[in-house]
Amino acid sequence: MAFEKVTRDENYSEWYNQLVYNAELAEHSAVKGSMVIKPYGYAIWENMQSVLDKMFKDTGHSNAYFPLFVPKGLFEKEEKNAEGFAKECAVVTHYRLKADPEKPGKLMADPDSRLTEELVVRPTSEAIIWNTYKNWIQSYRDLPILINQWANVVRWEMRTRLFLRTAEFLWQEGHTAHATKEEAIKETEQMLDVYADFAENYMAIPVIKGLKTANERFAGAEETYCIEGMMQDGKALQMGTSHFLGQNFAKAFDVTFQNKEGKVESVWATSWGVSTRLMGALIMVHSDDEGLVVPPKLAPTQVVLIPIYRKDGEREAVINKLDEIADKLKQTGIRVKVDDRDTHKPGFKFAEWEQKGVPVRLAMGPRDLQNDSIEMARRDTKTKEIVPSAGISDLVKDTLDQIQSDLYNKALDFQQKRTYHVDTWDDFVDVIDNKQGFAVAHWNGNSETEEKIKELTKATIRCIPLDNKQENGKCVLTGEPSTQRVIFAKSY
Amino acid sequence: MAFEKVTRDENYSEWYNQLVYNAELAEHSAVKGSMVIKPYGYAIWENMQSVLDKMFKDTGHSNAYFPLFVPKGLFEKEEKNAEGFAKECAVVTHYRLKADPEKPGKLMADPDSRLTEELVVRPTSEAIIWNTYKNWIQSYRDLPILINQWANVVRWEMRTRLFLRTAEFLWQEGHTAHATKEEAIKETEQMLDVYADFAENYMAIPVIKGLKTANERFAGAEETYCIEGMMQDGKALQMGTSHFLGQNFAKAFDVTFQNKEGKVESVWATSWGVSTRLMGALIMVHSDDEGLVVPPKLAPTQVVLIPIYRKDGEREAVINKLDEIADKLKQTGIRVKVDDRDTHKPGFKFAEWEQKGVPVRLAMGPRDLQNDSIEMARRDTKTKEIVPSAGISDLVKDTLDQIQSDLYNKALDFQQKRTYHVDTWDDFVDVIDNKQGFAVAHWNGNSETEEKIKELTKATIRCIPLDNKQENGKCVLTGEPSTQRVIFAKSY
Repeated sequence: MAFEKVTRDENYSEWYNQLVYNAELAEHSAVKGSMVIKPYGYAIWENMQSVLDKMFKDTGHSNAYFPLFVPKGLFEKEEKNAEGFAKECAVVTHYRLKADPEKPGKLMADPDSRLTEELVVRPTSEAIIWNTYKNWIQSYRDLPILINQWANVVRWEMRTRLFLRTAEFLWQEGHTAHATKEEAIKETEQMLDVYADFAENYMAIPVIKGLKTANERFAGAEETYCIEGMMQDGKALQMGTSHFLGQNFAKAFDVTFQNKEGKVESVWATSWGVSTRLMGALIMVHSDDEGLVVPPKLAPTQVVLIPIYRKDGEREAVINKLDEIADKLKQTGIRVKVDDRDTHKPGFKFAEWEQKGVPVRLAMGPRDLQNDSIEMARRDTKTKEIVPSAGISDLVKDTLDQIQSDLYNKALDFQQKRTYHVDTWDDFVDVIDNKQGFAVAHWNGNSETEEKIKELTKATIRCIPLDNKQENGKCVLTGEPSTQRVIFAKSY
Repeated sequence: MAFEKVTRDENYSEWYNQLVYNAELAEHSAVKGSMVIKPYGYAIWENMQSVLDKMFKDTGHSNAYFPLFVPKGLFEKEEKNAEGFAKECAVVTHYRLKADPEKPGKLMADPDSRLTEELVVRPTSEAIIWNTYKNWIQSYRDLPILINQWANVVRWEMRTRLFLRTAEFLWQEGHTAHATKEEAIKETEQMLDVYADFAENYMAIPVIKGLKTANERFAGAEETYCIEGMMQDGKALQMGTSHFLGQNFAKAFDVTFQNKEGKVESVWATSWGVSTRLMGALIMVHSDDEGLVVPPKLAPTQVVLIPIYRKDGEREAVINKLDEIADKLKQTGIRVKVDDRDTHKPGFKFAEWEQKGVPVRLAMGPRDLQNDSIEMARRDTKTKEIVPSAGISDLVKDTLDQIQSDLYNKALDFQQKRTYHVDTWDDFVDVIDNKQGFAVAHWNGNSETEEKIKELTKATIRCIPLDNKQENGKCVLTGEPSTQRVIFAKSY
């Protein structure tokens, strides 16, 4: 592409777009609002899926699959949920195309195939799933139901950004059913912990666990728990949500069970999800002006090996040695790639893999071969060193671990430095507008105040942290009494 | 459910429905034509996916994701493809719901959100993918592109059968782009071999590899390769297809490349897919009147361990021993489940796991514990034996291998016995109507003859086997000269 590469400082948003393009992660499609996830981007998503899927199964969940389409009559049943998503729904009205009599070679929706009841393309699956659970649950013995679904969902969106906001996206949605309120809340909290664990220990992104205010709650939830991460522009990104749905869906879909005492009760529900938005977070937290930086645990290729040579004889000798090293690395479970393309120069390859964020690069030339040495470079710090090629496996393994923890610590350090406790409105505005970070401030607990602050600064309450200490203070806007601080920030 | 259990002989179709229900594989949903894949059914599908995904990656393919929606204008471009699928297309016409002014609490498609161009829910993704490839391909250096997608697709369908024919289904679709015809054909054939390998060595289903006739070809393909399996009612089920698409899509979407000589050419294409239909094949080939039989390699649980006890002290001792055995089995990579539910009797558990087709059942009571023995039962043969509990791991491992190969051989034997070489019309009709199997017969190569035979017998040409020997004969219907036999059968 012929554009000039911009830095984060120059234009963060354009930097993001260029990076997604250059690292070949995703691109816009011919369908307004929908993206194409390219093989390299999808490979990172697959690694995320595989870790999360194991975490879900380890906590007792099974996968299942429910229909893409939700009949309008079902979709309407939980009113708040329906109202919350109505404006973003793609609607199927016909089930057949036919030749357009007025335009040869063109097709049209066949008027005779008009559906008597429109179908909504799922924006989320509570309605269709709770309508199904109704038939699965009679007694307390049928509970809990612990199910997850990997699926595509559609929430119509005009102003799209790759991974962050698209009309169609990929996600997982857990939907569980419980006999008691306590058990459902415990599940909601457990899954939030799973998400936090994943964010911190795999994505290397520190997150704040908290509760959403009523304004920001999932439509139909009693309580929405979330994890919030800080991007390099100081904005927040909601990385995952876990909802305690109370008995709202059970009541809307008439899902009851007989408890141990023989009494009929409504079932308690949770739902929880993360999506391809996580790709956006991964990109924005770690990457630099040279391109993507991927934490080793999620990198499709953890180590790329690049041969350097002039003559054909050199080529073969160097590549043989690299293949040998690659095999050893593979044996220790490391994902490696020997870039032995003869069509590209080493400099081109260095730049390409740098853009794609491969954590460790090993390069070897004829002189290294002679000296039994190899050059190892880290993507995150851009440091290079010549090391003995014997014992390289252990060194690479340690280096990957080091990169993983360094990325986390760097992000944590950034998040802490950009988090400000503020007590005055001027300081608040200064943090949001100039310092660009999280403003931890007292708030009077009122939705109107929250709205007003949003109007004035574009900042919203990202969450009420779960580990908040209670303290007396004054609302940063109104001066009214408050018992705790909440986190304000601009957000994606 | 209160229905009376039927056998395969009594009513094969009802037997299938009951089995899918009783084994908790899938069920009909509130959405006409769409199914819910239940956790146990989905777990089998996940095992299939995991094996296939590895096979695709081992043959050089990467996964990616393309949009669910296809703008009508793109969908129309490859005319044969569009014509072939037009009658089955769900069409999105609106992108918003609003409160229905005439019906309080109800929603309606907002007339102001009418799309200027309708969106087709993908029935298959050639159009959207080739429209994307156009931008990825300039030079021969950009080729081949070897991509697979795991996705849901929608082909409107009124007369549905779980797994076999549903409006929405899950599948994988490979879409590859090549510089030469030869390479594309090689790819088409390679992926057919992958499917046959999977069917035979994992699903334990013998298949016939062949070519479809023009009548049965994929809309837009030059040549459709397929694998066909025989179900226990003698009908054929198409288990996978691999299409050589020629340059049809490249031409429709204007996808060209500069070859090594600098000349501009159209790109050559393939596509290939298998779907949740495979679940139908798996069920129909191996299962019996007691329920599902799952080949060990795809079984979510390969071994179930069931404790038998009267008193509490016995319970603990037996379960401890079974846990110990289960751990040993797990260590050798076997998927096990100890069914230690105290709410159900052993007889209930035996029946439940039999219905779900778990390949091996181990049962232990207090007397077994004393004798260091255990009862091992095979699901496929329903044989039982008391064996020493020491060394059970090796025995179970061997037994699972044995079951896997026995299932294949039994299915192969059945397929061979029900395959008849016929030379007269009477024999042909007898095979199709009474003997219920595959009729291997001469055919004059004419589409009209094929149509006529279908009208008369409901049998279609399932394929022209790839390994066909050429021989002179007479068309079974018309008596005209023919050079080879083809396979006729009724089919799903």
